Amino acid sequence: MTISTPKQNQTPDAAERDALPAPITEEEIFSSHEGGKLSIAPTMELDSKRALSIAYTPGVAQVSRAIAGNPELHRTHTWASRLVAVVSDGSAVLGLGDIGAAASLPVMEGKSALFKRFGGLDSIPLVLNTNDVDEIVETLVRLAPSFGAVNLEDVSAPRCFELEAKLIEALDMPVMHDDQHGTAVVVLAALINAARVTNRSISDLRVVVSGAGAAGIAIAEILLGAGAADVILVDSRGIIHADRTDLTPVKAAYAGRTNNEARVGDVVDALDGADVFVGVSSVKLPEKALEGMRADAIVLALSNPDPEVMPDVAARHAAVVATGRSDFPNQINNVLAFPGIFRGALDAGARRITQEMKIAAAQAIAGLVGDELAADHIVPSPLDPRVGPAVADAVAGVVEAARG
Amino acid sequence: MTISTPKQNQTPDAAERDALPAPITEEEIFSSHEGGKLSIAPTMELDSKRALSIAYTPGVAQVSRAIAGNPELHRTHTWASRLVAVVSDGSAVLGLGDIGAAASLPVMEGKSALFKRFGGLDSIPLVLNTNDVDEIVETLVRLAPSFGAVNLEDVSAPRCFELEAKLIEALDMPVMHDDQHGTAVVVLAALINAARVTNRSISDLRVVVSGAGAAGIAIAEILLGAGAADVILVDSRGIIHADRTDLTPVKAAYAGRTNNEARVGDVVDALDGADVFVGVSSVKLPEKALEGMRADAIVLALSNPDPEVMPDVAARHAAVVATGRSDFPNQINNVLAFPGIFRGALDAGARRITQEMKIAAAQAIAGLVGDELAADHIVPSPLDPRVGPAVADAVAGVVEAARG
Repeated sequence: MTISTPKQNQTPDAAERDALPAPITEEEIFSSHEGGKLSIAPTMELDSKRALSIAYTPGVAQVSRAIAGNPELHRTHTWASRLVAVVSDGSAVLGLGDIGAAASLPVMEGKSALFKRFGGLDSIPLVLNTNDVDEIVETLVRLAPSFGAVNLEDVSAPRCFELEAKLIEALDMPVMHDDQHGTAVVVLAALINAARVTNRSISDLRVVVSGAGAAGIAIAEILLGAGAADVILVDSRGIIHADRTDLTPVKAAYAGRTNNEARVGDVVDALDGADVFVGVSSVKLPEKALEGMRADAIVLALSNPDPEVMPDVAARHAAVVATGRSDFPNQINNVLAFPGIFRGALDAGARRITQEMKIAAAQAIAGLVGDELAADHIVPSPLDPRVGPAVADAVAGVVEAARG
Repeated sequence: MTISTPKQNQTPDAAERDALPAPITEEEIFSSHEGGKLSIAPTMELDSKRALSIAYTPGVAQVSRAIAGNPELHRTHTWASRLVAVVSDGSAVLGLGDIGAAASLPVMEGKSALFKRFGGLDSIPLVLNTNDVDEIVETLVRLAPSFGAVNLEDVSAPRCFELEAKLIEALDMPVMHDDQHGTAVVVLAALINAARVTNRSISDLRVVVSGAGAAGIAIAEILLGAGAADVILVDSRGIIHADRTDLTPVKAAYAGRTNNEARVGDVVDALDGADVFVGVSSVKLPEKALEGMRADAIVLALSNPDPEVMPDVAARHAAVVATGRSDFPNQINNVLAFPGIFRGALDAGARRITQEMKIAAAQAIAGLVGDELAADHIVPSPLDPRVGPAVADAVAGVVEAARG
């Protein structure tokens, strides 16, 4: 099967995709980032002494005194309870590796811009000059009254697992490492629809995840939670199985929960008889690796900018193909998930982002495709304005249902 | 001398002052602060996949890679180098005392709003759940690549002196505790003009400063730097002099630099023969205390909301009277200073805020009053749009002159 040519009137996506290939120049990128990408604005006019007396002294003293007497007012009368801290130590920035806090800041500013644009949420980038997990936790605990949620970003594995777990324990607010769970949510959404377009469901799918870093582990976790038939994790040394002695504690924990047939070998061995390949590593996949996959195979080759296998090659062996790139169909983009997940969690006053909330987010994303579902249209466009609100509603709904 | 009625066409101030007394209700204050007072906005449109590719992946990777290779680009291609962190531990919030970080946040948000409105600077409030000076320093050092300057706010004395000094050492960026130096700059500006309107100069003035906390100490320091004839500091136990054994190290350091006549006693003893009273304590000043002051006395009764002495009482003994309140003439308001000081320091790429920069700021503020100078108009209105730019220019000018 080849990727079908998008129909003329199919989606806004299709038209835009055709118009896209105007090359983006380096000058254009650098001039766009000059001076940074964020701006602070007061939400009230400060154009009279009266307005100053309300916003600042003496009026503000009444608000501060009220919060001191009733801490719950911190939630309603500051911006903190709806403010996301976008936190990174710059240790795993995009494909660039450990480039440090200062160099990671443009990414975090971009993330904040996306939070506002797609989730209507304010956020502030906080980049830290330390890679020590306990120091990062300590720093955020000290600053906790300043914000209402933490989006961890571009923190290297396996530290990211420990950091997220410790922050969830230490902070009484939603915390999520987006490189793990944002990616996992959108992959699940894509697989729900890829299964649907090939007349299956998630529980029918045997999935191979290539890459057992932040994204790979979280994808395995959400697929197990969503009932996938089997999940096999493959790292740079091959299939993860219980007999391997070189596994980190996190990987070892998954050895017992994945790979039902206790396979050994490399990614080609893993893909034999599999329904799904999910690539979140920088490994190149030889075409022959796809030959052993079952009929109606699904290939999500998500490495950026170079997919594990190019879509035209994958399409010779797969019914559905997706990448992380905006210039191919089926872009798997975290922006479909994180703005709505945080928005829903904060709207509902959630203290945690649970697996159930993430699965609900994936279902909401998948559900928006509706009648436009096709092999080359399994996820909405990142620019689809319905996505953020739909994800937020679904996530908030889980929180509210749990409260009864 | 009584406070003169403002002339009809004198200043925008005067008209507004007359219109002011419409009472501000509690409902109005609380509804204005609901949800907080700040908002983040992306500086670029994110309305196409192309725009996303520039602002976020893959385009942003080029910017991050460039910064990793050339750290100087952090200054030009992020918002950090022009971003002020408004930092507090909530230990001395307005007149409310140690109400904690969470309750201090409305004040810090207000400060950020003022930074934008009057200095055109972005800023983020960071409130800390610790009063430990070294922990606050450590926290800000870890976060340093996130911002370009630190405005300390509402930190209690004497910790504020140690905290500011340690931060200046630890951070390679402008740091200023506004309750100290913002106040001191505006007091100096007021005294320059109060002296002028009574045909004197700063070097003629014998000044009594009531209150030896954050503001009092900084006022003494800037007045000594500006050449005041004598400065006497008075704390809650009386005049600070070298024989007192109950002084903190900071106060003891000023015992040797102030109080030329080695006076002892209380504020009444201090005011005998003085030209200027500056009140930055919550002490009430009995009218008789003013009787010993020299002719053309100057009274700055800056406690808020209740001045040490009410202006109508002070005016029986003083040629010039000022308070911190917006409903009396001559409002001594920090907003005249801090936005322009930080703006000028950041514009010029300064690494420190020096005494010379602060004095230049005071001169710039005083200079703007120009021909409108009168006993009841010694400082510009906080809403005068010329103030921020004039202060910024003066401060940047000092930095640039020092570079030769």
